[in-house]
Amino acid sequence: MRANPRRCPGRPDEGLITISQGESMSSIERLESGPRMSQAVIHNGVVYLAGQVAADCPGAPVKDQARNILERTDKLLAAAGTDKAKLLQVTIWLADMRTFDEMNSVWDKWVVTGSTPARATVEAKLASPGYTVEMSFIAAR
Amino acid sequence: MRANPRRCPGRPDEGLITISQGESMSSIERLESGPRMSQAVIHNGVVYLAGQVAADCPGAPVKDQARNILERTDKLLAAAGTDKAKLLQVTIWLADMRTFDEMNSVWDKWVVTGSTPARATVEAKLASPGYTVEMSFIAAR
Amino acid sequence: MRANPRRCPGRPDEGLITISQGESMSSIERLESGPRMSQAVIHNGVVYLAGQVAADCPGAPVKDQARNILERTDKLLAAAGTDKAKLLQVTIWLADMRTFDEMNSVWDKWVVTGSTPARATVEAKLASPGYTVEMSFIAAR
Repeated sequence: MRANPRRCPGRPDEGLITISQGESMSSIERLESGPRMSQAVIHNGVVYLAGQVAADCPGAPVKDQARNILERTDKLLAAAGTDKAKLLQVTIWLADMRTFDEMNSVWDKWVVTGSTPARATVEAKLASPGYTVEMSFIAAR
Repeated sequence: MRANPRRCPGRPDEGLITISQGESMSSIERLESGPRMSQAVIHNGVVYLAGQVAADCPGAPVKDQARNILERTDKLLAAAGTDKAKLLQVTIWLADMRTFDEMNSVWDKWVVTGSTPARATVEAKLASPGYTVEMSFIAAR
Repeated sequence: MRANPRRCPGRPDEGLITISQGESMSSIERLESGPRMSQAVIHNGVVYLAGQVAADCPGAPVKDQARNILERTDKLLAAAGTDKAKLLQVTIWLADMRTFDEMNSVWDKWVVTGSTPARATVEAKLASPGYTVEMSFIAAR
């Protein structure tokens, strides 16, 4: 593909949209916006993510699912113009609370010391039996 | 410490900025505010709703409960000066995850394409056995 | 009451404090920030707390656990520069929904009439079997 400075690959108008949105505080930006939900919604400098599951490895052990979720979250946060050092509040659902330590072994390595979010973890059955952990994030950008 | 009217402690020049921001941004508005909870709380351009249940039809099938919740939510969002096209993040609790598709059949028709919120759905027993679905909303206004 | 321009009622320096807060709207403040999570995260005039449990009395009846949680929350909100009259949204998880009334008997006395938050309560198994109630808070400051 030829590089074309006036017509960027992907979403050419994204930059402009962001600018005007940044100006007015009540505008809303949505990423990966599907008919049921958006993966990220940005408003007033705050990024709300959809519940993240291990879409690349359903059925895998909790450790792998947690790792996959956090990799996917890193990408989503980057697309939203932020990163894990700006997390505000996280809710974690485990299909089985006995996997709490296993999940934390991945979580603890992922979070940024000095910039950890407020967090709550409870047990809940998830939408698909293949998923054993789900995480919901609110971040600043 | 001596008071010095010309040289305030802290950062004296930021006062003007803050005053106008502080006045409007820190105020909180509450709708249907009861002794236990308010149905909607508005702060800084963000609307937080209480967990919504099908108060008009407890015991009804999930489809009807979902429809009732979303009708009630429409009214509440309107009273708060906003609407479903400005939803930011939604949490859905189902008493039985096997009703996921049934709930979605109502949800998918209700949301505004291109303006869907971030969403997470998990299973949880609710406050009354008559309720089989509950939804919590954060919206911009 | 006579207006006195030199001695404001309440907290005379509040304006100045607010100013520095208003200035850097995108900055993030964290309280009791551990390697896994922070107990409070403050951004853009909003305070997000970690899920609060009765750390001082695990295994105690729900009533006592609720009381302990709310005492701890009062302290945490104070440290974050706010209080329970500025609560926006609260999620409550009960290990056993049959303790709903017991939890509410403490909650109802604690909240500030006219300033109650949006609230959702669902059942969920918590991180430790000794904990029978957990609460997650979002407040303005």
